[in-house]
Amino acid sequence: MPSPSDIRLPFPASVLRAPKGSAWQRWQIDPEAARPQVSLKSLDPAEKPFSGGDKAADKAAVERLADEIDQLQNVFHPDARYKLLVVLQGTDTAGKDGTVRGVFGRTSPLGVRTVGWKAPSEAERAHDYLWRIHQAMPGNGEIVVFNRSHYEDVLVPVVNGWIDKAQTQQRYAHINDFERLLAETGTVVLKFMLHIGFDEQRQRLQDRIDDPEKHWKFSLGDLEVRKQWGAYQKAYEDFLATTSTPWAPWTVVPANSKTHRNLMVATIVRDTLQRLALRFPPDDPALKNLRVE
Amino acid sequence: MPSPSDIRLPFPASVLRAPKGSAWQRWQIDPEAARPQVSLKSLDPAEKPFSGGDKAADKAAVERLADEIDQLQNVFHPDARYKLLVVLQGTDTAGKDGTVRGVFGRTSPLGVRTVGWKAPSEAERAHDYLWRIHQAMPGNGEIVVFNRSHYEDVLVPVVNGWIDKAQTQQRYAHINDFERLLAETGTVVLKFMLHIGFDEQRQRLQDRIDDPEKHWKFSLGDLEVRKQWGAYQKAYEDFLATTSTPWAPWTVVPANSKTHRNLMVATIVRDTLQRLALRFPPDDPALKNLRVE
Repeated sequence: MPSPSDIRLPFPASVLRAPKGSAWQRWQIDPEAARPQVSLKSLDPAEKPFSGGDKAADKAAVERLADEIDQLQNVFHPDARYKLLVVLQGTDTAGKDGTVRGVFGRTSPLGVRTVGWKAPSEAERAHDYLWRIHQAMPGNGEIVVFNRSHYEDVLVPVVNGWIDKAQTQQRYAHINDFERLLAETGTVVLKFMLHIGFDEQRQRLQDRIDDPEKHWKFSLGDLEVRKQWGAYQKAYEDFLATTSTPWAPWTVVPANSKTHRNLMVATIVRDTLQRLALRFPPDDPALKNLRVE
Repeated sequence: MPSPSDIRLPFPASVLRAPKGSAWQRWQIDPEAARPQVSLKSLDPAEKPFSGGDKAADKAAVERLADEIDQLQNVFHPDARYKLLVVLQGTDTAGKDGTVRGVFGRTSPLGVRTVGWKAPSEAERAHDYLWRIHQAMPGNGEIVVFNRSHYEDVLVPVVNGWIDKAQTQQRYAHINDFERLLAETGTVVLKFMLHIGFDEQRQRLQDRIDDPEKHWKFSLGDLEVRKQWGAYQKAYEDFLATTSTPWAPWTVVPANSKTHRNLMVATIVRDTLQRLALRFPPDDPALKNLRVE
């Protein structure tokens, strides 16, 4: 990994860092550590570090934050100096869709684009695994949310034994290098791992089975993946430790509570946008006293 | 144009038709007429055919409709039998962005994708003009909104004299054939021409010049385009008459009032989705009594 002094971001690196002593800090995988220890077992998915203690008040706060993000997007777009990529990772039922709705549900569809990543097509597999990812990146003034991401390419192959340890390390390096390119050319990359417990997932899968209106969210394959829970958690720990970089750090979001999950992600997105000190483009003297005929 | 009996839509053709005697009917360019007369001068952009008469009530109705569209999208997606393309055309300041926000501002960003079309890049110009359009089409269960569209390719070249009459007719035929492909393979195509008056545009452009926070929406080129107002109106009339087909009809939306514009578009989108008789996918017997371990 390049030393922090080699990195040239077009925004202060502190934009991406959990402030010392903040509720966020414990949940951000330390991007300065050479190889931080990550133990998902020691991070309780039922915790609510961003909660004020009252659920109704937390819900109201999420709505206010969603409105604030909409307002900030209204400047982020014309400002056009930065791009924002929000990566959402998590096991089945971790709440990726719900986070998009809760956090960006008040933003005009003009202002935010979501990309849901599925298994690559044959045409996509004919390219390197970052090829299709690169094409989906936000442009200046654009916000893109990834529902799953290129991290599936160091999850699924690892858990299923399709790539060995050396190949996995190689992929981490590719991804870190790729994200460094993005960051150094103006993309603010926020990566969230939505963290739910094994029991919570059981309940949520059961809900999808029991409610006919949720059947479409369920496939029998989800139960096979659930059997690999331990291997997936280990693969998560591995990439969280290896790809939380100063230019694209990971945050683990305790997500058993949907309201808390939205509150935490929305707060971090809002704070990050605020720290960018967004502004409308400078005045154009040609427009002074111009009258339309 | 193929005769209506040749057309095989996977949904009733009536889904796309303004009901006889409805407020919508006068504003839909008759898709059954061989070549309807279209006179934008006779369609007053200040009219409010969908208004209940009270602006506050109209605004509240738009919010309710936006919520209803969100609810319908929640079934449209898992239903996955259809695709929805909403085309928004109109002169500068006609309110395309505002319509997206007003009509789809309550829909999760997961459920609707917007595409803003600008002048083609060099790489895009190396292909036919529908090549990039085709790539942006919605898939099953997806809603896509076009902010401008392929109709710019029979507006800008026509007004600037880059293509002659025969070439223009040829493009209309391409577009009609292309949209027929879309419709016959499950895409519901709703096309709206947002219609504002010459004076209304003057005021809106002036607002963009006078308000520094709106400068980014303005370019000096907009004043040059405004000088071609008459030629653009004529080009609009021409394609409205030629490309309002039974499988993809045009509706003119009187849009001097922003509230009315949103009310009319939202009502038609809501009604169209309702008429599709959406439903969750049929029950899967494999899920009966299934328990998650």
